[in-house]
Amino acid sequence: MIIRSLNKVTKTAPVMEGAREVTKQLPIGAADGSPVFSIRVFTIGVGGHTPYHSHPFEHLNYVIEGHGVVVDEAGGETPIKRGDFGLILPDERHRYRNTSSTDDLVLICAVPKEYE
Amino acid sequence: MIIRSLNKVTKTAPVMEGAREVTKQLPIGAADGSPVFSIRVFTIGVGGHTPYHSHPFEHLNYVIEGHGVVVDEAGGETPIKRGDFGLILPDERHRYRNTSSTDDLVLICAVPKEYE
Repeated sequence: MIIRSLNKVTKTAPVMEGAREVTKQLPIGAADGSPVFSIRVFTIGVGGHTPYHSHPFEHLNYVIEGHGVVVDEAGGETPIKRGDFGLILPDERHRYRNTSSTDDLVLICAVPKEYE
Repeated sequence: MIIRSLNKVTKTAPVMEGAREVTKQLPIGAADGSPVFSIRVFTIGVGGHTPYHSHPFEHLNYVIEGHGVVVDEAGGETPIKRGDFGLILPDERHRYRNTSSTDDLVLICAVPKEYE
């Protein structure tokens, strides 16, 4: 059993071309012996966004703090806010963007452990 | 892409012998086309707990609200609180128990979709 507080997990700057004001944490990952999934947390600052990208695996999301949008393939924006869950299917192009002028957008982004 | 607010997901009483004051929600599951994992949310009321049990798959946890303990194989108690992540490995006996006298304990409990 592993119990780990988010505020004790190191923040790193992810190597993602097109990311802006994004930091990453890995509270639970393959190194912890997680059998299938890794849990990452992204903090997207004011004016920030993740890269517009797709990949052959899903994202499972939960919004811990803040609000923003998920931008889809056609440029359509779906609002997300604290308390929302998300499923981005494999190969769906998307990005997360913070739309607050004051607060961070903090979200869980779980992926199969092979990818993190 | 699916975006779903927790407060719009139906609460059900799970069929789990030994559960007390527990309700379950399934924000993302196999029916949504999730390729690998389902996300459940358990709300454990004051005085409540989940059954003491084990299973051949892992739990991935995030504590959304409140505080409590995870009770392990030997009866040892590990505190959990809002902002904590957890990994319960396959076959680890455990239960979640709310230790607050006033507030619900609300936690994400993600499992391989075959189990939910």
